[in-house]
Amino acid sequence: MKLSARNILRGTVVAVTRGATTAHVRLELPGGAIVTASITNEAVDELGLAAGQAASAVIKSSDVMIAVD
Amino acid sequence: MKLSARNILRGTVVAVTRGATTAHVRLELPGGAIVTASITNEAVDELGLAAGQAASAVIKSSDVMIAVD
Amino acid sequence: MKLSARNILRGTVVAVTRGATTAHVRLELPGGAIVTASITNEAVDELGLAAGQAASAVIKSSDVMIAVD
Amino acid sequence: MKLSARNILRGTVVAVTRGATTAHVRLELPGGAIVTASITNEAVDELGLAAGQAASAVIKSSDVMIAVD
Amino acid sequence: MKLSARNILRGTVVAVTRGATTAHVRLELPGGAIVTASITNEAVDELGLAAGQAASAVIKSSDVMIAVD
Amino acid sequence: MKLSARNILRGTVVAVTRGATTAHVRLELPGGAIVTASITNEAVDELGLAAGQAASAVIKSSDVMIAVD
Repeated sequence: MKLSARNILRGTVVAVTRGATTAHVRLELPGGAIVTASITNEAVDELGLAAGQAASAVIKSSDVMIAVD
Repeated sequence: MKLSARNILRGTVVAVTRGATTAHVRLELPGGAIVTASITNEAVDELGLAAGQAASAVIKSSDVMIAVD
Repeated sequence: MKLSARNILRGTVVAVTRGATTAHVRLELPGGAIVTASITNEAVDELGLAAGQAASAVIKSSDVMIAVD
Repeated sequence: MKLSARNILRGTVVAVTRGATTAHVRLELPGGAIVTASITNEAVDELGLAAGQAASAVIKSSDVMIAVD
Repeated sequence: MKLSARNILRGTVVAVTRGATTAHVRLELPGGAIVTASITNEAVDELGLAAGQAASAVIKSSDVMIAVD
Repeated sequence: MKLSARNILRGTVVAVTRGATTAHVRLELPGGAIVTASITNEAVDELGLAAGQAASAVIKSSDVMIAVD
């Protein structure tokens, strides 16, 4: 599958926290930055997400803002 | 200013492409990954964005999906 | 690649309209509904999108609202 | 009320799952596809959403990605 | 039509700027704040948006971040 | 920090409701309108959000739809 999303950042899952319906998944990128994703518990189950696993953060470019100091 | 957004990824602007109303800004992260943001031309002007500049990509965690191979 | 996104709707591309930086892609679903996506021109090129092609609309569940009459 | 959102997909609610603050609503489209929406519990109450009810999924075109196999 | 979106802010259109495919619509709220929406040119035409018109900004709560100084 | 987001609406926090992972924060704008944000519990803690506090709703213009009656 090829995606139109411009941002597919490879990393490693470092934490999965489940809520009642929504889970938070933390991914560490090669440069050390941490990316947090809020996804459904259902998706966590279906993808079998767990710490230590290789995974990518997928982000549509229209969802990225820019900040400068 | 402190933001609720969980993802603030520091990097360097490598390209700014303006359209009629919408611009694409490409940021290189320390690990070498490229992040693309679609923002307004107006924001590009206001932030004075140009290649070589330090900037951050700001992404709400509910806008991050996870993919596994 | 497996995605956390809960909505992957298969259909057929019926139109691609390019703007200066942003393109609109129209997809017809099996039930006849039309889905419009605003994506980058770059993604249109990379995926080689054109009318008649099979493709899917991918939508994160946190981006779906519900309306009732 | 008329909306700028390009995607208003009519269907039938097939499931409503409440979490602590966020609910998942599943809608079946005429072609048989299922659309999942993550919305607030508050919205579920206000709209009186329940299985069997006619409802629409409303999606802004900038939140739709395209995938090809 | 009733919407699950928690944020429906009534105001007055003060400017409409069309791009090649994407338009920017500026709305003034009763308290004087300005809200900018990036929507398709097609939606601008369909809703007949023009300065002076009453309109609402509709925003899903999962798309709202919070900032503090 | 300066942000590309076109919408930074100043207001006062009127309610914070925590869920298992996701919190709802309600902000009152000067004109009396209420804005609801769904953010992570983690962000609520980090920003120390509580009723009575000054805060802003930050919204990317591509996440704003327009409705007319």
